[in-house]
Amino acid sequence: MAEYKSDIEIAQEAEMLPITEVAARAGLTEDMLEPYGRTKAKVDIHSLADRPSKGKLILVTAINPTPAGEGKTTTSVGLADAMNRLGHQTMLCLREPSLGPVFGVKGGAAGGGYAQVVPMEDINLHFTGDFHAIGAANNLCAAMLDNHIKQGNALGIDPRRIVWKRCVDMNDRQLRNVVDGLGGIADGMPRQDGFDITVASEVMAVFCLATDLADLKARLGRMVIAYTYDRRPVTVSDIHAEGAMTALLKDAIKPNLVQTLEGNPAFVHGGPFANIAHGCNSVEATTTALKLADYVVTEAGFGADLGAEKFLDIKCRATGLAPSAVVLVATVRALKYNGGVPKAELTTENLEALEEGLPNLLRHVSNIKDVWGLPVVVAINAFPTDTEAELALVERRCNELGVNVALSEVWAKGGEGGETLAREVVRLCDEPSHFRYAYELEGGIAEKIEAIATKVYHADGVDFTGPARRQLAQLEELGYGDLPVCMAKTQYSFTDDQTKLGAPEGFRITVRNLRVSAGAGFIVALTGDIMTMPGLPKVPAAEKIDVTPDGKIVGLF
Amino acid sequence: MAEYKSDIEIAQEAEMLPITEVAARAGLTEDMLEPYGRTKAKVDIHSLADRPSKGKLILVTAINPTPAGEGKTTTSVGLADAMNRLGHQTMLCLREPSLGPVFGVKGGAAGGGYAQVVPMEDINLHFTGDFHAIGAANNLCAAMLDNHIKQGNALGIDPRRIVWKRCVDMNDRQLRNVVDGLGGIADGMPRQDGFDITVASEVMAVFCLATDLADLKARLGRMVIAYTYDRRPVTVSDIHAEGAMTALLKDAIKPNLVQTLEGNPAFVHGGPFANIAHGCNSVEATTTALKLADYVVTEAGFGADLGAEKFLDIKCRATGLAPSAVVLVATVRALKYNGGVPKAELTTENLEALEEGLPNLLRHVSNIKDVWGLPVVVAINAFPTDTEAELALVERRCNELGVNVALSEVWAKGGEGGETLAREVVRLCDEPSHFRYAYELEGGIAEKIEAIATKVYHADGVDFTGPARRQLAQLEELGYGDLPVCMAKTQYSFTDDQTKLGAPEGFRITVRNLRVSAGAGFIVALTGDIMTMPGLPKVPAAEKIDVTPDGKIVGLF
Repeated sequence: MAEYKSDIEIAQEAEMLPITEVAARAGLTEDMLEPYGRTKAKVDIHSLADRPSKGKLILVTAINPTPAGEGKTTTSVGLADAMNRLGHQTMLCLREPSLGPVFGVKGGAAGGGYAQVVPMEDINLHFTGDFHAIGAANNLCAAMLDNHIKQGNALGIDPRRIVWKRCVDMNDRQLRNVVDGLGGIADGMPRQDGFDITVASEVMAVFCLATDLADLKARLGRMVIAYTYDRRPVTVSDIHAEGAMTALLKDAIKPNLVQTLEGNPAFVHGGPFANIAHGCNSVEATTTALKLADYVVTEAGFGADLGAEKFLDIKCRATGLAPSAVVLVATVRALKYNGGVPKAELTTENLEALEEGLPNLLRHVSNIKDVWGLPVVVAINAFPTDTEAELALVERRCNELGVNVALSEVWAKGGEGGETLAREVVRLCDEPSHFRYAYELEGGIAEKIEAIATKVYHADGVDFTGPARRQLAQLEELGYGDLPVCMAKTQYSFTDDQTKLGAPEGFRITVRNLRVSAGAGFIVALTGDIMTMPGLPKVPAAEKIDVTPDGKIVGLF
Repeated sequence: MAEYKSDIEIAQEAEMLPITEVAARAGLTEDMLEPYGRTKAKVDIHSLADRPSKGKLILVTAINPTPAGEGKTTTSVGLADAMNRLGHQTMLCLREPSLGPVFGVKGGAAGGGYAQVVPMEDINLHFTGDFHAIGAANNLCAAMLDNHIKQGNALGIDPRRIVWKRCVDMNDRQLRNVVDGLGGIADGMPRQDGFDITVASEVMAVFCLATDLADLKARLGRMVIAYTYDRRPVTVSDIHAEGAMTALLKDAIKPNLVQTLEGNPAFVHGGPFANIAHGCNSVEATTTALKLADYVVTEAGFGADLGAEKFLDIKCRATGLAPSAVVLVATVRALKYNGGVPKAELTTENLEALEEGLPNLLRHVSNIKDVWGLPVVVAINAFPTDTEAELALVERRCNELGVNVALSEVWAKGGEGGETLAREVVRLCDEPSHFRYAYELEGGIAEKIEAIATKVYHADGVDFTGPARRQLAQLEELGYGDLPVCMAKTQYSFTDDQTKLGAPEGFRITVRNLRVSAGAGFIVALTGDIMTMPGLPKVPAAEKIDVTPDGKIVGLF
């Protein structure tokens, strides 16, 4: 294996265009920009309020991944660059990285190799401060909630039924479970509590679904933060926090413009969890990009069973968006993983396992076509560790099975390595689309979960635990029955058991918990323990991150 | 009393100059700026590294205040505007506001009336994200510390002797005292813990004292975060966190340029607590301003016994700065408060109480002249509630007592209302200065505390509690004996009892606790319980803060 430059080396060697030039490629003039340094800007959405949407939307999703991820971001970046190379005016919409993984184990999240968005260090660190604003809004609400109780609790909030957590944008397991309000009468009301990572907060989900400031404020006000002693929901508007929270978010809500390594415009904005939330960038970014570009490439978190399902059934439904084509990213590595190869052996050639992993890919392909009615192409995201024989086998088998497939070499070659994929995507965008949702909103919560489980996961059915059944009844009684459902499930399997890889059959899904994200506008159905506050590994990535005396970041990958 | 416009109304009506024009008034060219929107910018300090210092430094401090504060910021802004009006090229250096008081009770902290820095809403909300960066750096360190313990505790850290707290930039009393690490073996090590408000963190103090990125990293690395079972100090560099923390602060450390209502350049940068820390804006901002302007006006927190003492004995000593003149802000209100008038009656004329409060002012004046050898002028910061008779009395008595005094009407009139003060300040700057510190670094910690207590507070002496005496011995044994001392004391009195107003005599100071801020480079001597995490009041200011659908903040004062 040859020596490769690290992502940060490639990113730092790049000659970035002034952000005004990047903006010009998207038809944005300087007065529509709020610069953050020379290579980042927020876009004034008010100035575009009346602009019609013109672009075609391309969703990038993936097969069930390995724990390292399969390069959806890298593929998205490279695809957008390739489309621009071919003369198709294309913008990119990506999620913002969280500081948690940056300092934990994963490193940066701005693409990789020669398919990155830059300035990569800024994007991975504070960027334009959006996540800090989201955290501050979340924590202001928490402080006002506990202060309400401390100051007499006029609303009758039951401290045991507070469902609102504080958050930090950090992997900090020490804060998962705490008792706070200790110290005495002057210091609050002792109660069990806990922190989530910022990206897992409902404020993040709301931020990413809001269509404008008024909608943002209305959604924030609707969020359920606690229940009273007589079990009535208490919302943010009950404690009069939504105005100040919106004030904290008024600049954050504007999409962040950056550039790819090839100088093409990209929005990087918002980043909710893909399990307890819907896992895609902000509606503001996507709808703004569709006003500016002929094609918009965007991605959704985790595999297509989680990310694409929510993108299509939650985000598209909430906003009226409809993709024209879907790109399903697969890697040789993930196919082998789905074929039963342990993590440590994924870099060794194994054609047999590769073939055994293919049913996972095929099931995602047929889901996209048959459940949602969308044209799809498989992008094989080539890794340096892939062998020629492996790459050839995947392409050949896909062709034999009638699956559109294109090799994507954007990691190694940038946009040039994505031209085959780009041509196929442009072709698919011109095909007639028959987009439909996997389920309709009418009908009970249980029916919607069953539709997702049977149609998308191919389960035999859904079991609800006792608590989940009670919560289901309560949520419907409270009037939340018409909301869509956000499934919280392992990303490694179609099932709720992360060890069942490939395309398992003959299983049932167990829903253990249900709760409402009334501001985001969905019911979260938890099929297991979902980690909403990660921890740091034995040797955190942070130990290697440094900055030179003249301000250059090193050790960030 | 007439109707007055609120601060935010005045600020929002202001026609702001593009930040590039403001920068030009300070001789800064566009390539030295990193814009944050159109009216804020960070200044590239590297481009100014070799520029010599040319300006004269003017410190604005105050008599012992009322709980509402006496308008040091307002006076500083108005003075800078007045000096510029008179043709003296002047820059302003202020502290950044914390979100805590903005949402709590105090409201904004960017000056008042016609003496404000703008954009006032941005400055009071996230501004350029510095405090979020400081919070993230602080909390990364905490997460890495607890992770170290969880992953085997190779350093032998005693979880009962962790002195590092997490922080949020929020008034949140619920977090003052917590037990965290609950939940089981996978979730950390249960221990007593607590949160501070971000401005009370040592990272904030370090941020404000660092001279460049290398110094910042070295200071961060020296911070003591815990002690081992055998009582050895554990520093940030022991857990390898200083590189990543510096990476998080690499942009924050650059001074933020904004403008006064009259378009004059102002740095607003950093804001450590004035009790457990040194209470003034960043060294980066002050030293950069001195390279750019002929005069630099800056302020220090609380009254002169706390803020000016630390500015002079800690910040000036650490950096070699020396002010040319001192402005002591007094208000009719605070003089009456020091004369024994209760808070609720401060708006009623009371010439007798006013006169009884004067000894407080006189003692501060003589301290500045005799302890530190600096020329001083008293600025009477006029309030709309002051009567003519009251203002006249203060001026007359000051004149009789040989105290330089000038009426400052900048709140009502902007720079024009500060011209008398400005002329006196410029005159003082030309007087020969005999600046000296209140104490030398040699000698024990106790001697330094005694020097401050007897010379500055006019106490008869200092008592140390048993724990404080033991801590004193430990800190000297660990080699921290040569550091300056940062006194944590009530801001309302020369004594450690906030009810003893005026110029009390015949008292002793009790030091209850000593700890080291090894990165900031001082010993903190606590004379009582200092609140490092405020709470929200019955009706938080946040309940009134809102934003209109087109993005205009309302209800922020």
